[in-house]
Amino acid sequence: MTTIEDGRGYGHQAGTPDPDLVEVDAGTPAGELLRRYWHPVARSEEATSLPRSIRVLGDDLVLYRSLTGTPGLMLPRCCHRGTTLYYGRVEDDGIRCPYHGWLFAEDGRCLDQPCEPDRGRNKDSYRQPWYPVVEYHGLVFAYMGPAEKQPVFPRYDIFEDLDEETEDIVIIDHFAFGGPSDAPCNWFQTHENAMDPYHVFILHNAISGHQFDPKLEIWPSIAFQRSEIGVTATQDRDLPDGTTLHRVTEVRVPTLRVIPTPTLSVLGKTNNMSWALPIDATNTRVYAMVRKPKDRPPQGLPVYDGNRSWFDLTEEEHQRFPGDYETQTGQGPITLHTEEHLSSSDRGVSIVRRQFKEQLVRMADGLDPVGVHFDEADAVQSVIAGNYIVGPDTDRSTIPLIESLDDD
Amino acid sequence: MTTIEDGRGYGHQAGTPDPDLVEVDAGTPAGELLRRYWHPVARSEEATSLPRSIRVLGDDLVLYRSLTGTPGLMLPRCCHRGTTLYYGRVEDDGIRCPYHGWLFAEDGRCLDQPCEPDRGRNKDSYRQPWYPVVEYHGLVFAYMGPAEKQPVFPRYDIFEDLDEETEDIVIIDHFAFGGPSDAPCNWFQTHENAMDPYHVFILHNAISGHQFDPKLEIWPSIAFQRSEIGVTATQDRDLPDGTTLHRVTEVRVPTLRVIPTPTLSVLGKTNNMSWALPIDATNTRVYAMVRKPKDRPPQGLPVYDGNRSWFDLTEEEHQRFPGDYETQTGQGPITLHTEEHLSSSDRGVSIVRRQFKEQLVRMADGLDPVGVHFDEADAVQSVIAGNYIVGPDTDRSTIPLIESLDDD
Amino acid sequence: MTTIEDGRGYGHQAGTPDPDLVEVDAGTPAGELLRRYWHPVARSEEATSLPRSIRVLGDDLVLYRSLTGTPGLMLPRCCHRGTTLYYGRVEDDGIRCPYHGWLFAEDGRCLDQPCEPDRGRNKDSYRQPWYPVVEYHGLVFAYMGPAEKQPVFPRYDIFEDLDEETEDIVIIDHFAFGGPSDAPCNWFQTHENAMDPYHVFILHNAISGHQFDPKLEIWPSIAFQRSEIGVTATQDRDLPDGTTLHRVTEVRVPTLRVIPTPTLSVLGKTNNMSWALPIDATNTRVYAMVRKPKDRPPQGLPVYDGNRSWFDLTEEEHQRFPGDYETQTGQGPITLHTEEHLSSSDRGVSIVRRQFKEQLVRMADGLDPVGVHFDEADAVQSVIAGNYIVGPDTDRSTIPLIESLDDD
Repeated sequence: MTTIEDGRGYGHQAGTPDPDLVEVDAGTPAGELLRRYWHPVARSEEATSLPRSIRVLGDDLVLYRSLTGTPGLMLPRCCHRGTTLYYGRVEDDGIRCPYHGWLFAEDGRCLDQPCEPDRGRNKDSYRQPWYPVVEYHGLVFAYMGPAEKQPVFPRYDIFEDLDEETEDIVIIDHFAFGGPSDAPCNWFQTHENAMDPYHVFILHNAISGHQFDPKLEIWPSIAFQRSEIGVTATQDRDLPDGTTLHRVTEVRVPTLRVIPTPTLSVLGKTNNMSWALPIDATNTRVYAMVRKPKDRPPQGLPVYDGNRSWFDLTEEEHQRFPGDYETQTGQGPITLHTEEHLSSSDRGVSIVRRQFKEQLVRMADGLDPVGVHFDEADAVQSVIAGNYIVGPDTDRSTIPLIESLDDD
Repeated sequence: MTTIEDGRGYGHQAGTPDPDLVEVDAGTPAGELLRRYWHPVARSEEATSLPRSIRVLGDDLVLYRSLTGTPGLMLPRCCHRGTTLYYGRVEDDGIRCPYHGWLFAEDGRCLDQPCEPDRGRNKDSYRQPWYPVVEYHGLVFAYMGPAEKQPVFPRYDIFEDLDEETEDIVIIDHFAFGGPSDAPCNWFQTHENAMDPYHVFILHNAISGHQFDPKLEIWPSIAFQRSEIGVTATQDRDLPDGTTLHRVTEVRVPTLRVIPTPTLSVLGKTNNMSWALPIDATNTRVYAMVRKPKDRPPQGLPVYDGNRSWFDLTEEEHQRFPGDYETQTGQGPITLHTEEHLSSSDRGVSIVRRQFKEQLVRMADGLDPVGVHFDEADAVQSVIAGNYIVGPDTDRSTIPLIESLDDD
Repeated sequence: MTTIEDGRGYGHQAGTPDPDLVEVDAGTPAGELLRRYWHPVARSEEATSLPRSIRVLGDDLVLYRSLTGTPGLMLPRCCHRGTTLYYGRVEDDGIRCPYHGWLFAEDGRCLDQPCEPDRGRNKDSYRQPWYPVVEYHGLVFAYMGPAEKQPVFPRYDIFEDLDEETEDIVIIDHFAFGGPSDAPCNWFQTHENAMDPYHVFILHNAISGHQFDPKLEIWPSIAFQRSEIGVTATQDRDLPDGTTLHRVTEVRVPTLRVIPTPTLSVLGKTNNMSWALPIDATNTRVYAMVRKPKDRPPQGLPVYDGNRSWFDLTEEEHQRFPGDYETQTGQGPITLHTEEHLSSSDRGVSIVRRQFKEQLVRMADGLDPVGVHFDEADAVQSVIAGNYIVGPDTDRSTIPLIESLDDD
């Protein structure tokens, strides 16, 4: 019997994901890498006196804000008898378990055990597992890694020195997926998409029409550069007036994406940044932070014909006008890397993957991954991404880092 | 690198349940122990000519009542070709499979095979797997253990000698969980709660207000006693008139809970008893049996402000006013015993667990577990629990068993 | 301790299915056998320019029809970066992935890679896994086995030589399950039911009333015959006029069922045929094809009292009036063959099972299973089933194959 090879599905072997890209649980290489960084876990207004169940990096947690205003983030299972602090009562000093009344401070110390003699002679020997949190421009960030590796909380130059009279910083939910803030797929599928400029011309233009600015339809000159802490993609477009539109997008280890404003309305450094939050291995949320003039509304939901949003589309319309949500979740809960056939246009994606995996090697060698700092003086980080107009007379030193990055 | 130990969640290892407390399936030690007792599996009115699917101890069963009035309990899968008797037709003598018409008596004997020659020359060699049932005051009880170990069906003194003129016995659904009759958690989580008097002062009073009688807010003197067949907890409260309110709660192996009437309206032996039915490892139903004057309504659903029941509460209200349902299901489908930190106030819970596990040792040694009897003369059992007023002149011998129990 | 054997459920061991009857996945013996035949996978009108997700033999596929009219059936995961072609754009020549625009022909060849240099210099080295399809009288059939074993597409004599003026052929959904076209159970449970004539007298008559033609209530003389490619059952009923109603039903390897018209309105060869499609191991669809006069409506949904359909019945009515759906799904997602007790009336079922499993032996021996042909001259197959009136003067040679079949 001669086997005929005509590429049909018979005999197709299902592929597997690359675990080093997609794992998020504690104890896995990638999960431990993710735990060396601060992650946004909720909007500030979601931390209230009513405890809230959240899931981060595959761990179920409870978030609350004590009556004196401090957010707290804890494992939900009370260390005493195991009921959930989701039903706990938030007080001035912390959260009290509803079952037998143990009271825990934000750092997990047990402050009261009302059913025990002397309200708990040994209460100092109990501690509710907790995580440190920081609030930053409307988001609650948590650090879920080892205490001795806790980095300083990073801030970003594009959000510093806010003119509170005229500017504000807002959190936008629908930034990444064109509608939903959450998508039922692994975080890396959305993360690497930010370093995939080619899909814009197909998905957002040729297939689904002008989802972004029509000016971006001109096919640009595309290049990728590696930096110490991430990857940038540059797109150069010659404009009719002889200048060049120089567009820089960046992706930073582990989950940060910085893109020029999609609408080209802001020249210079971008006004936004977003984080892919791995809720667990198969669910992702994206938080986007945008700095804007107070008198301008934040970027709204993308609009389809007749002023309808993604949420208004029928299933057929989602098929006819797919976007980021459809193509990213369409790879399945976790994509199967061994089935892929990467091509030259996937070069940015390849670099992002390689750089992420290099951090696993660093950690295996006992080094810290890139981008973490332990000195408060290093807290503010400088962003590169933006839209820049470059003419013959432009002082190129004002365009951040373009020349200093080596092409990979 | 020095590890900093500050109790944070990083490095927390998820615990495990104690299988000897939580398993219910046949073949497991605890599942075999449970199968040595009669369990309530349905209300009598649920056994009708319309077959009903029920699940008990992890086993799927079908319950019906033949047209002559006898309840039958069987494995649903017909022993012939495997369709379910849930679609069977109930007749005078039993239940007939709808597919090929085999008719089974309540004890599983095959009475007819209409498609076979002579309506089944060999029908005596087939038997549909069945279980014995007993009806008792409105509940159908089943014995699912080995035939040779079938105990006499236990009755209880508090339900004997009913004055049918003035009294009746009713089954109440919402007794244990403050609303639902079923909870999605292991049965032991609700069972041991009955021997945890301390939670009443926190959960039902301090956290969620006066869920029970305000008089019970006086912090009593609490003690625990072991008996042959269970555990009792006594609460003594000095009353203003110089007498003592002596309150006795008991828990019996395996699933029985007897508490004083919560409202103190009945002095002396209690009027109620309840059984935790392990539907399966992660679902539990509680049946409560209450004896009461005919002219008094049975205890209704607990009432929240504005005459609303548990079912009317919003999610936020469940969080603000948690009760037994929330704290017991809040431990998860099966609690993780290795994560617990039992304290002095958990002494009753510890005794209940220890005594249950001692039965597993007895069975491993070839002995019968406590509380089963094989002689009909031993069928009626005496209950201890109740509210008793003890004064200087009280004949303490009238208070059942208090002194006779050794403190564990 | 003496064990009492009274057939009770205690100690009952759960059975297992026979994998050789129920497996459908590629790589399993039965799954490979099924893959040697053409299967109906959709109605023709379901193949459109809007891609459709379907599941066949446990495999997820996407079906579409190119703008020039050719149906295509492919694995949904694009071979490039893994997003699903369910969101693809159907064009003249095939389907284009929405993410980076790779275009695939119906036979999987890659025709365009717009983001690659020269639109894909190496595009010939990529192929999207595909399956061949054939359209036949309103159904799309697919062959999912090895290329070198692809049989000619079988046609059937009862659907040949259609008089397009007066006749048409229609596809009926509710044929097998009395309402739904799909049932959540293994395909073999519905398939073997077609060779189980006895259940008709119990289920459809004694239990649930006259679901079919009242004339069929006369208990006939039943016999089974094996042929090369399947099994037939004959039912002979003596009619009052001295003739015999000779009814022939057949089942063919692997999934074909041919029954006489249930209503006896058509004498001679039957006008219908149906296929059990294993969607996956626990879900089955039945497609029925019926040839009929144009001026007669196709067989409608079975009607219950008051002109209600299966879908209108309450749960209690489904219990009181069970039919094929209830008894077949009532065996569970996959029946447990080792728990069965087959009897003399199950002889047809036994033969169907044995013959199916004999094909696994043939394949293990390197032979082709029965009923596949590789020569176009053998494409048209002759059907046996029908209702025949046999009188003393009947030329029995006009009744197809009855005598030529040996009783098994």
